[in-house]
Amino acid sequence: MKVNHYEQVVQQPVEMEGSHGCQVRWLLGERDGTPNFAMRQFEVAPGGYTPRHSHPYEHEVFVLEGQGIVFEGDQPHRLNAGDVVLVKPDEVHQFRNTGTSPLKFLCLVPNSATSKKATVAPECGKEH
Amino acid sequence: MKVNHYEQVVQQPVEMEGSHGCQVRWLLGERDGTPNFAMRQFEVAPGGYTPRHSHPYEHEVFVLEGQGIVFEGDQPHRLNAGDVVLVKPDEVHQFRNTGTSPLKFLCLVPNSATSKKATVAPECGKEH
Repeated sequence: MKVNHYEQVVQQPVEMEGSHGCQVRWLLGERDGTPNFAMRQFEVAPGGYTPRHSHPYEHEVFVLEGQGIVFEGDQPHRLNAGDVVLVKPDEVHQFRNTGTSPLKFLCLVPNSATSKKATVAPECGKEH
Repeated sequence: MKVNHYEQVVQQPVEMEGSHGCQVRWLLGERDGTPNFAMRQFEVAPGGYTPRHSHPYEHEVFVLEGQGIVFEGDQPHRLNAGDVVLVKPDEVHQFRNTGTSPLKFLCLVPNSATSKKATVAPECGKEH
């Protein structure tokens, strides 16, 4: 068993192409002995965003704090604390902080995700 | 993509042997098309507890609200909002609400968990 507070885990900048103002904590992963999936916690600064991309694995997301939008392709869905998001494999998606405080969410992925690459999606007409 | 608030999901009583005062919401699971793992949200009433048991699959837990204890066998660990717990396969464990408000946490399991049975652990000398 492993027990700790999420803020005890070191926060690292997200350096993926197409991201801005994002940090991540790997709360639980293969190095902790997770057999199947990993738990990460993301923090997106006001105005920040994750890459607009797709990949062959899912996200299971729980919003902890803040306000934002998740794009399903070009379709925005508003996000607030307590919202749950399933991003299915190969869906183009992007998270954006539209509030004035950090947008914090959990994002879980299968262990296999670490060996699979994401595909950056082309920008569409409007900015997002 | 699926987006909704966790409180929109129907809460069901946990009727496992050895549990008391527990309810669960299946936030994301195989019927939503999750390929690998399921997200559930538990709510344990003050004085309530989950079964003292083990099973051949892991839990990845994030505490949302409240105060409690997770037992790792006979060893208690205090829990508060923001705490993260990895229960590895076959570890005897139990969650207890030791506060005065509901203990709310996310608990994720692999999809394979639904076909695997838990083993109720014997009570030990002291009550928990």
